[in-house]
Parts: sequence; C-alpha cells; structure tokens
Amino acid sequence: MIRGTVTGRLWSSKRIETLPNGALLEVKVGSSTLVAFDPLGCAEGEEVLITQGSVAASYFPEIKAPIDALIIGSVDEN
Amino acid sequence: MIRGTVTGRLWSSKRIETLPNGALLEVKVGSSTLVAFDPLGCAEGEEVLITQGSVAASYFPEIKAPIDALIIGSVDEN
Amino acid sequence: MIRGTVTGRLWSSKRIETLPNGALLEVKVGSSTLVAFDPLGCAEGEEVLITQGSVAASYFPEIKAPIDALIIGSVDEN
Amino acid sequence: MIRGTVTGRLWSSKRIETLPNGALLEVKVGSSTLVAFDPLGCAEGEEVLITQGSVAASYFPEIKAPIDALIIGSVDEN
Amino acid sequence: MIRGTVTGRLWSSKRIETLPNGALLEVKVGSSTLVAFDPLGCAEGEEVLITQGSVAASYFPEIKAPIDALIIGSVDEN
Repeated sequence: MIRGTVTGRLWSSKRIETLPNGALLEVKVGSSTLVAFDPLGCAEGEEVLITQGSVAASYFPEIKAPIDALIIGSVDEN
Repeated sequence: MIRGTVTGRLWSSKRIETLPNGALLEVKVGSSTLVAFDPLGCAEGEEVLITQGSVAASYFPEIKAPIDALIIGSVDEN
Repeated sequence: MIRGTVTGRLWSSKRIETLPNGALLEVKVGSSTLVAFDPLGCAEGEEVLITQGSVAASYFPEIKAPIDALIIGSVDEN
Repeated sequence: MIRGTVTGRLWSSKRIETLPNGALLEVKVGSSTLVAFDPLGCAEGEEVLITQGSVAASYFPEIKAPIDALIIGSVDEN
Repeated sequence: MIRGTVTGRLWSSKRIETLPNGALLEVKVGSSTLVAFDPLGCAEGEEVLITQGSVAASYFPEIKAPIDALIIGSVDEN
C-alpha cells in the first residue's frame, strides 16, 4: 500500500456505466498525484492509505468495477 | 486511477485478433505518454481519467481483451 | 519481490471492513517508502522481503483482502 | 498500453517449460528496454503497441503462460 | 518481461508457509535490484529473463504462491 494526502475531489459526468458512484479523490503521493475511490468520506488534507491494482476492484463484489486505486484507511494521527 | 490529457489517436492495422475495435488514444500523463482504449469518444485536449491493469480488461465481459489501460471518464471542467 | 527495511508501524482506526486485522508496517525500499501487511511479527530495522500485487492478497484465502503488499519473509543475516 | 520500437531479438534455450515458443523481442520504450512476446512477426525498427501484466498472458487461452508483455499491434505509419 | 543479471542469493528462514522452497535470487535490472524465484538453477553473473506480477505465481499450479517475480529463462550468449 502507499500513503498519501488528499488534495481535492474530481467529478466526471461523462463516464462509463460500470464506474461506481462515490467520491473520486486526488491524492498526493510523494511528488506525483493519483485518483482513488473513497468509500470512507475522507476530507482534504487527510492522510490516507491506498491499495492499488485488481485488489482495489475486489471491494465491489457484485460488479466488475474499473477501479485500480482504493482508499482503505485513514492514517491515525500520533 | 491517473489523470491525463488526450494528445492524439493511433491506428494499428496489423494487430492481434482479440484487440477490440475502437479508438486507441495517446494520453499524456505527467512527462510520459500511454495509449488507452476509449469507449467514450474523447477528443484531443480533453482531460480524462484512466484505469490500468487487469481491471481495464474487465470492461469487455465476453472476450479476453488485451487492454491494460481504459478511459473511464472525462474530467468535468470547474 | 523487493527487499526493504522496516522503519515503523502505522495505525488506521477509520478503515474499510475488509482490511484484515494485523500489523501494517512502513518499509523503506531504496528511496521510497511503502506500507506492507506483516504476518510475521517483524521489528523496526529488520530486513524483509515483500511481494506486491494480487498475489499479496491471495495470502488471505477466505476473504477478498485489499492488500497489495505483503511481507513474505525476513532476510537472514549473513 | 505503451508504444515502443523493436530493437532486437533474444533467445533463451534454458527456459521453463511453460514459456510458449515464439519470438521474444527487445523493445525500447522511452529510455528503458523491455522484452515482449511477439505473435505478429514484427521486424527491427518497427513501432509496436505493447500490453502488460496478466492481460498479456490471457492471449494464451489453454496454458498459463508466464508472459507479462505482449505485442498487440504494429503502429500504422502516418 | 525484463532482462537482468544475477548478483547473489538470499535466504529467509523466518518466512510465511506458502512461500515455496527454492532459490531466491537477487537480480540487477538497470540501476535497481529485485528478488526473483529461480526454478532453473541460475548462477551468479548469468543473464536472465524475468516475468512479474500474478503470472509469475501461476507457475505454481497447486498452491497460491506469493511470488511476483519469476526467472523464466536464461538469455543465450551471442
């Protein structure tokens, strides 16, 4: 998994039908940015843990979701 | 997922039979370029969201498509 | 697989339900850091071997764990 | 997918049995080089499109081929 | 696939049970090093071809091996 910081949210109205409804968050990881599906309601500035690849899609058991990055947790503050 | 900008289209006449018909777009992501299958009819200059890996191929339910990058949405302008 | 050094542990209370209980360790690999699930009880400073991707999740046979990095061994000292 | 240029061919006599017979081509992609299985008979200097990961192996329906990079098309010249 | 040079062997006594017995070799690929499972008995200095990801694990048909890098061949000398 990788750790990153939520920097914003992205909307996509023109989308394929199998893309699940829910928040798509932009997350800064080191010097690059990726977009992850957020089932937890994370806010801007929150530190999150992201899983990538086909295991991210397995969170959606009944559909074949085209999701390759999923927020699986928010990192506890020390 | 990653966010990029469509920069062109690519044609391939000499191809394997399992490659689905449809647009293959070149997308600039940061300083590199990848080629993604486009089911949405995106245009040059459009900002898109791309999913990668085996989940990209699961968009094609009845064939084993050799697609590892799929445009899943167009990013809404603010 | 990749080889790295455990640098710390991370806690996440706000998490998705399918994330297995167990240690999430931060591991330094070259100049970057990733987070891996640890079934072996590794300590800070220990050198470990990590597998990545969907094979990491297959360690959890009865659930679809959203784990894309797993510590599979501790590297023997010479 | 990624686009690259064929730079040579590689032979391997000492190999695992599940490696399919066929051409293994070296392909330059940006500043790095990878080796891809070629079902199309591509030549040195040809520009090709490569798919990576488990979808590359799905081209071989009856065996579990250890192939993670497959040439799926030759890029048409403009 | 990627091409690299064997630089050493690694032992791990403290390991998960599903890790198959067999050689774990360190292989230099460009400027980085990875660890691959070797079913071929390769020696230090040998040039090898490595496949990565879930297709590496499919070499082990009866177990779910946590292997994401597999040596599939030794590169013939010219």
